Formats: sequence, structure tokens, C-alpha cells
Amino acid sequence: MAARIGITMGDPSGIGPEIIVATLAQMDPATRSVSAVVGNVDLLKRADRLLGTGLKFAEGLEAKAGEAPVVHVPTRDQDRIRDGQISAAGGEAAYRYVEKAVELALEKRIAVIVTAPLNKAAMHSAGHHFDGHTELLAHLTGAKQSFMLLAGEKLNAVHVTTHTSLRNAAEKPTMERVLATIRAGDRHFKEIGYERPRIAVAGLNPHCGEGGIFGREEIDRIEPAVEAAKREGIDVKGPISGDTVFYRALKGEFDLVVAQYHDQGHIPTKLIAFDETVNVSLGLPIRRTAVDHGTAFDIAWKGKASNANMKAAIAYARKMADRVAG
Amino acid sequence: MAARIGITMGDPSGIGPEIIVATLAQMDPATRSVSAVVGNVDLLKRADRLLGTGLKFAEGLEAKAGEAPVVHVPTRDQDRIRDGQISAAGGEAAYRYVEKAVELALEKRIAVIVTAPLNKAAMHSAGHHFDGHTELLAHLTGAKQSFMLLAGEKLNAVHVTTHTSLRNAAEKPTMERVLATIRAGDRHFKEIGYERPRIAVAGLNPHCGEGGIFGREEIDRIEPAVEAAKREGIDVKGPISGDTVFYRALKGEFDLVVAQYHDQGHIPTKLIAFDETVNVSLGLPIRRTAVDHGTAFDIAWKGKASNANMKAAIAYARKMADRVAG
Repeated sequence: MAARIGITMGDPSGIGPEIIVATLAQMDPATRSVSAVVGNVDLLKRADRLLGTGLKFAEGLEAKAGEAPVVHVPTRDQDRIRDGQISAAGGEAAYRYVEKAVELALEKRIAVIVTAPLNKAAMHSAGHHFDGHTELLAHLTGAKQSFMLLAGEKLNAVHVTTHTSLRNAAEKPTMERVLATIRAGDRHFKEIGYERPRIAVAGLNPHCGEGGIFGREEIDRIEPAVEAAKREGIDVKGPISGDTVFYRALKGEFDLVVAQYHDQGHIPTKLIAFDETVNVSLGLPIRRTAVDHGTAFDIAWKGKASNANMKAAIAYARKMADRVAG
Repeated sequence: MAARIGITMGDPSGIGPEIIVATLAQMDPATRSVSAVVGNVDLLKRADRLLGTGLKFAEGLEAKAGEAPVVHVPTRDQDRIRDGQISAAGGEAAYRYVEKAVELALEKRIAVIVTAPLNKAAMHSAGHHFDGHTELLAHLTGAKQSFMLLAGEKLNAVHVTTHTSLRNAAEKPTMERVLATIRAGDRHFKEIGYERPRIAVAGLNPHCGEGGIFGREEIDRIEPAVEAAKREGIDVKGPISGDTVFYRALKGEFDLVVAQYHDQGHIPTKLIAFDETVNVSLGLPIRRTAVDHGTAFDIAWKGKASNANMKAAIAYARKMADRVAG
């Protein structure tokens, strides 16, 4: 049997339930039965009615072929949750789904977690003060650091920094952080089947600083990290100018680009594949993919949300799960 | 008669002469006769023989249909110039071509300058200490500031900053500089025929800083500039997240994106149209387009260089020149 994945339902007021249900409905029966949702079965049934998808849900991780397994997590203050509105109850529910999924992943009962979007403000108002999913997952698993990979069919970027100001992104990272990012990317691509991933590291400054004329970060931080990674046997080149390296990767020269900051990696990957780019967390003791969009409260529970990105996130998780089990 | 443009030959040791000759050879006869090269006629003849293009050159700005006019600038120490090598003589020659072209542009004898690449180190060794073409042009025309536009068929980006460290790009620009960049972009797009260009301004920080959580530059600098531009009647939106704004522009929602720093504008424009993206200088008292690549000394004078980018730079200059004359 294929390895099991677990999909957290996200904030119940957002588009999570309906994009999950839409994706489950498009799966073949055998795959559906090993794609468990961690969430609220009543809300999933409501989304199923909304979309007219006619799914049959089974409580627990086990399900017959064709059925959709749901690990039901009771919702506190459910009557305070409104479609498309921020609430502490919605934030609390979203938090509980992630907590449960992490528990299942640490117990190896699911191989990969896929997360639907949660709302940061709602989670904060429920008393859980995390900057987002990644920080929450790090807390729940005790991880000290993690790395965001944006994965697409044609372009992949793993980030040295993400949700910090551009000023901090330029100043703060160390040579060790750049090296750790290269290693995490290399490890992940080997895990998903690349024998020797071809990695390129982007420069931080325009034209890689032109030998220190505008910025010394390439000389002080990035070049030493690349050299150290090479000594470990990693197939890595760089630093290469940001305005060239993604073009070269797109043309097939590299499997993965190490981006120095959020927009450097996000701009090219999302430009090439806006709806199909998947967010993958590396460096955690568990495996996790996620949609790269928010709760979209403005269109939630109207049957209008596109499930393209959820479909891609689940497909990527399935690829990882099958590798681990295989 | 169509307005005249002037094409500087660039460093004679580089690929300038051959990519210009290749492009002239592909022009219709009437256009060729109003596309003057500012350079060395002997070297252009040598490039013509190298490529077997059979051009007929005419000295001066005037030429009959079919002929290629050349404003010949005598070269000092020509015997010290070697194919594919940095030399003070090559740097001096490249400098003189630009100086002459600026003179012709200021006298309104040419409507637009197109520049072939020069080598910064060669120019420095000839005693001309400019960071590049743009700084040189600002010096020669007495301009206080300029703005780099990368122009492509599908995506256009004008830059608040360019050749400075990412740290400086995050810290230094003022609200006035952002506003001046919006204005320069608006003015240019109106000049080339857009009645009311639709402009979007990118944020500096990831997710535009999320309301000041990671970076306050959007609040302190970018939003006020956008509001001021709106009050002047400019059709401008923003700040919009870097990882969304270029995708929306590519889908047709905006004519121009204001990028906050070099890579933010260069990564998406070059990813979408690597060879066809043209560098246009805005804010100078003269009009100028340029290739977006260097002298490529490693392949110079071998007949191997692609003229795709020179062709695009000349086509854009032609479009501007015809607008001015028309």
C-alpha cells in the first residue's frame, strides 16, 4: 500500500475545506484512501455538498478504496466560526489540526503533511503567537532551523532567508546559514530521486557585487559556503548573478537555485508557474508541503476557489511519500 | 524622412562592431541610411568582411538609401588594440564614440543614441573614471539623476536603484527618489504612445513588509510616493508584493512596474525575454537605449556573437525616434 499523507484543513473560515474536497474528488480511489484529512468531518461534508462532489468520508486514518479518511479533531466554540471571518475559534481549530498532524507524523503514521492555509491574526487571537506555519511546525517538532523550498516543474528555489525585512536579509545571514541551505537543498533533491542534484547559488548583490565594488557578501559569506559545500562533494556552482542564474536554471542547467532572500526566489518561480509552485519545508524532522496562498476569506465557502495549488502541493507530497515508502 | 539614430560602436576589442554590422545588414535600405554608426569605419569594414554582409559605408551622417552612414572618430594608438583584450586604447576609443554621439544628440542631429558595450576596466585605464555608460552619459549631459528601464515586449521595469549593494538599495532611497522614478516611467511611456500608462510599484520587503512587521520602507517611503504620484494624475497602484506584481503585469494588468532594486526588476524581465530586453536610460536630456550585455571579449571578432539584443535595442530606439519626429 502506498504511504499515507495527512492534509490539515486550515482555518475553517477560509478556502481550505473546499480546495481539499475538490482535490480529493479528482483522485483515483486507491490514492484517496491514503490521503487523510486532519480536520472537521462536518465541515468537510458541508464543502462536499457545496461542490456536489459526492465523497464518502471515513473517520480515522484507515479507509476503504474510494473513501476519504478523516482524522476528526473536535472544534471548540464552533458556533463562533463564520464563513470568511477572522475568529479566535477558527485560529484555534487550525492550530489543533496542525498539532494533530505533527503528532501523527512524528509517530510515523503519516509520511508527509500537507497544510491548507491558516490565518495568522486568527491564530494569534487564539493565543498561539507564531509568525506562520513554519514557525509553528518548528516549535511543535523542536527544530532549530528550517528552509523554504518553492518547487515547480521547471524552477526550484530554496531560500537562505524568507520572512524578514530586505535589510535583515542582506545583513544577517552567516556563511553557516548559506552552507546549511545548500546542504538542505541537496539532501531533499537526493531524497526525491536526484542522484547528484545540480545546484546553483545566487549572489546577493547586483552582478554578485562586481568583486566587492557594490557589496562584499559574495566574498565574505557566499563564496566560502559554496567552496565548503563543494568539499563535501555537493555539485554546486556560484555565486551567479540573480538576473542570470534563474534563466540558466529554467533552460535546464541547474535542478535547484539557492536564493538569498524571499523575493529573489519567489519572483522567478511564481512568474513561471504561479498556480503550480509548491511550498516545501526542509530541515524539519517531519516532511511537509503547503499551498503558497492564503485563506482567501473574500471568496471562501462560495465554491469559487481554485484548487490548482492544493492539487500541486498534494501531488508533491505524494511523490515524497512514495519515495520514502518505496 | 525618418528621424536619425546614432549607434556607438563600443569597445573595438569587443563584439560591438560585429553585432552592429549584423543588424545593419538585416535592415531595410531606407532605415539603414538613417541609422548612423559613431565609430571607426575601418573596423566596421573589417566586421563586414568577417560576416560577409557586403555593406556599403558612407562617411558622415548623410547617406543614400541602402548605404550605412558612419560618423568616423579617429582612433588613438589603434595598433595597441587587440581582439578580445582590455586596453587603454580600446577604452579611450569607446569613450570618444560616446562623447561624439552625445554631442550629436545635444545638437538634435540624432534623435536617439544606441550604445554597444564598453569595458569599464578599459575605460578606467584610459583615465575616464565612470562606473559605466549611465554615469558617463550623466556626466556628459550634466544630468543629476537617471533611471534604468528594462523594456521588453511583455514586461517592463524601471528601477529606483541599480548598481549599488542590496544593503544600500534597501536603506538609501528616499520617498522623492521613488516618486521621481514613477514620474520618469510615466513620462517615457507617454512619449512612446501610451495615453495613460498603467503603473504598479513593487514593495521592497517580502509581502510589502506585512504592515511594518518586517520592514517599514513601504509605509515610510513607498506608499507616500504612490499617493503623491496619484495626486499628480498618474495611474499608479502599489506597493504590491514583488512576487505578485510581475505576474500581474505579465498577464496584462500593468504596462510598467517600478522595481525597488536591480535584481527585483532584472530577474523577471530577463527570465521572460533574456535576449530581447532592452536597457533604456530615462531622465537624461538625451534619449538612449543600450544592449543589456557586455563586450564578450571571449567570443569577439569570431563571428559568433548573437545580435538579437542589439537588434532589439535599435528597434526600440527607432520606435522612440519615430515618435519624436512624428
